[in-house]
Amino acid sequence: MSEISKGLENVFIKATSLTYVDGEEGVLRYEGYDINDLVNHCSFEEVIHLMLYGDLPTKEKLAEVKNRLNQSYSVPSSVIRIMEDLPHNAEAISMMETAFGGLSCFYGVPWDKAKNKERAIEIIAKAATVTANVYRIKEGLKPRIPDPSDSYVESFLEATFSRRPSEKEIAAMNAALILYTDHEVPASTTAALVASSTLSDMYSCIVAALAALKGPLHGGAAEAAYQQFKEIEEPDNVEKWFNEKVIAGKKRLMGFGHRVYKTYDPRSKIFKNYAMKLANGENRKYLDIAIKLEELGLKEFSKRGIYPNVDFYSGIVFSSLGFPDYMFTPLFALARTLGWLAHIIEYVEEQHRLIRPRALYIGPEKRDYIPLDVRQ
Amino acid sequence: MSEISKGLENVFIKATSLTYVDGEEGVLRYEGYDINDLVNHCSFEEVIHLMLYGDLPTKEKLAEVKNRLNQSYSVPSSVIRIMEDLPHNAEAISMMETAFGGLSCFYGVPWDKAKNKERAIEIIAKAATVTANVYRIKEGLKPRIPDPSDSYVESFLEATFSRRPSEKEIAAMNAALILYTDHEVPASTTAALVASSTLSDMYSCIVAALAALKGPLHGGAAEAAYQQFKEIEEPDNVEKWFNEKVIAGKKRLMGFGHRVYKTYDPRSKIFKNYAMKLANGENRKYLDIAIKLEELGLKEFSKRGIYPNVDFYSGIVFSSLGFPDYMFTPLFALARTLGWLAHIIEYVEEQHRLIRPRALYIGPEKRDYIPLDVRQ
Ligand SMILES: CC(C)(COP(=O)(O)OP(=O)(O)OC[C@H]1O[C@@H](n2cnc3c(N)ncnc32)[C@H](O)[C@@H]1OP(=O)(O)O)[C@@H](O)C(=O)NCCC(=O)NCCS
Ligand SMILES: CC(C)(COP(=O)(O)OP(=O)(O)OC[C@H]1O[C@@H](n2cnc3c(N)ncnc32)[C@H](O)[C@@H]1OP(=O)(O)O)[C@@H](O)C(=O)NCCC(=O)NCCS
Repeated sequence: MSEISKGLENVFIKATSLTYVDGEEGVLRYEGYDINDLVNHCSFEEVIHLMLYGDLPTKEKLAEVKNRLNQSYSVPSSVIRIMEDLPHNAEAISMMETAFGGLSCFYGVPWDKAKNKERAIEIIAKAATVTANVYRIKEGLKPRIPDPSDSYVESFLEATFSRRPSEKEIAAMNAALILYTDHEVPASTTAALVASSTLSDMYSCIVAALAALKGPLHGGAAEAAYQQFKEIEEPDNVEKWFNEKVIAGKKRLMGFGHRVYKTYDPRSKIFKNYAMKLANGENRKYLDIAIKLEELGLKEFSKRGIYPNVDFYSGIVFSSLGFPDYMFTPLFALARTLGWLAHIIEYVEEQHRLIRPRALYIGPEKRDYIPLDVRQ
Repeated sequence: MSEISKGLENVFIKATSLTYVDGEEGVLRYEGYDINDLVNHCSFEEVIHLMLYGDLPTKEKLAEVKNRLNQSYSVPSSVIRIMEDLPHNAEAISMMETAFGGLSCFYGVPWDKAKNKERAIEIIAKAATVTANVYRIKEGLKPRIPDPSDSYVESFLEATFSRRPSEKEIAAMNAALILYTDHEVPASTTAALVASSTLSDMYSCIVAALAALKGPLHGGAAEAAYQQFKEIEEPDNVEKWFNEKVIAGKKRLMGFGHRVYKTYDPRSKIFKNYAMKLANGENRKYLDIAIKLEELGLKEFSKRGIYPNVDFYSGIVFSSLGFPDYMFTPLFALARTLGWLAHIIEYVEEQHRLIRPRALYIGPEKRDYIPLDVRQ
């Protein structure tokens, strides 16, 4: 069985210029730019240009990206109706799968090198529409298409909450989208790549990615981390909870640990800063809890290379922006749509080959057929 | 770049007891049983039991499978409404993606070893409902849920065409489902496996598989092969067409060639027999064309190990059963749903690990951030 590459660990499925991760030093770069620089200086639209075209945009190019986004928020009315027709207590990511399946019925055209990147920008706009309306429909609000505005984040937040977001909210959401934009080839990106390798349409590739993201081992960690803070309830309970659940109970500390980072995930520090700036209401308490929990977690686990990851503080940020827990994974999906698209375009345009692994046969030798009447 | 496993060729993603393919001898077995024996003697329900439980069923077990299928054809009315709400000229597989996304909103529960196989049978029943209604909705017919009957094939065909199928039709459709049931780990099965590795729900895994099957390099070959026969129009035109298009024009002969088989795909011979028994109307002419084309193809390509594959004659069979070309890929999906489910259950229950390959970084070195105002 040693021939099997379990979990495809250390199998290189493609080459990439998109994302560089140094798990020893805690470094993350998109197209060579440090994640801290991008978060501190860039709009998400600039990162869209960076990931699709390989560099940060000039003013003219940036205006083109914004323009295309602003023109592309609309979706066919039947896609909205479909979402409304789903059970409102359905898992949010399954609603997104269904909506993107519907979009692929309308827009699922063949690949075309002259148009792939522009279409990717259109898909990113429509992802905002779908994500905003997952929230609206689950909350019993009337669906709403984002309006054109000066920024993608503003259009998205205003459509979601039916109110103008503050500058502070826009800045935090902008940072969150950039932080979740890409992380090389986790399972969801791999699923998108496999679909793209058959030359399936771009919307269907997003459908495949969402289907993989849905699993609790992938998309659900921010929600699970936040759930812990809720369960702990009060900062004074942290130590008891940690000792009982994590140490004695051997439950994993959610929002800690990573297959690649063996030190601080640089994204977790950035999210912590935003959490400290934004935390409101119950989230102030949860932030105190999180900070105490981080301390205990580090004391116990850092010697084994287990540190806070991107999902430890992100829930506090999302919740402080007004999102219920069930939206944490859809927000991950919204940001990662850019990463998925950038990877499949890189693959189809520059490295394309049908993905077709093998399975090692370990079943029975040839068996003779036995008629139904005499089977035992 | 030699570290990259392009297309994951010869990478073993899992072990399997399900399907054995000998590409040199042209042998295909499910769980040790030769494909010819299965097609000649078994009902599709027996193959469902074989793939899920590892052996052909006794009479009692077979009755249990049939019973569960008969009880499971219904789907929520909103899933049917969703399909009706899609554009009727949409690609059939995208409609199936959307419908299965909707089903995952209703039934997308966590994995449970005590229930996975029973749920798989329920999903196979609902796949018949979805597939029949893709046809009905595209043809402008009223949606219809399959009725319980003595066989899955009968229930499916009757729901599709609103008439009782003949014994001959039932036998051919039964054979077609068995022939398309599984073929190890092509792209669609790989996409399902990646989704299952995050412990995403079974319906979402089917969504991922459908999204990958949609691509013209995977699910579309039967339709493309049949398109050739239509284009050739008359048996007398075969030689001219072959010389112009395939020899001089270097167009690939669709329905020929396979990554694994370097001789006759055993499935193509079986489909040819059914085509000879069933061909009606225009299909009689297409069969004559296909037989001539096969001869020329073999003369040219067999020395290079390029032979007819499963898709060469299957379109003539499907069309003779009354299906339009656009249904060939959905019928492939209907049959393969069993293979997808059997593989993900084998993976999750016995070999589970998160699938997370790597990408080889070939992008720019660290770059300094440049403010928007001074970018060129
Ligand atoms: C992300 C994760 C799956 C990485 O896993 P991995 O590289 O495959 O590492 P493993 O799951 O094999 O864990 C290796 C060891 O570290 C321990 N470990 C890893 N993460 C841990 C955590 N968060 N809490 C406690 N122990 C942890 C494991 O128990 C294991 O210990 P062992 O060797 O004594 O059995 C893992 O850290 C985890 O489950 N974290 C919590 C969930 C989470 O936050 N996910 C979001 C990731 S962005
Ligand atoms: C199925 C298929 C993709 C297998 O491909 P593969 O193992 O990756 O083989 P390649 O595509 O690398 O082809 C190898 C050589 O055989 C030739 N070849 C393969 N299938 C051919 C066909 N159907 N007609 C003409 N030439 C063919 C290729 O042109 C290539 O020739 P070259 O070495 O001179 O360039 C290929 O045979 C094909 O495209 N067939 C037609 C589509 C089809 O019927 N698909 C259904 C498969 S079940």
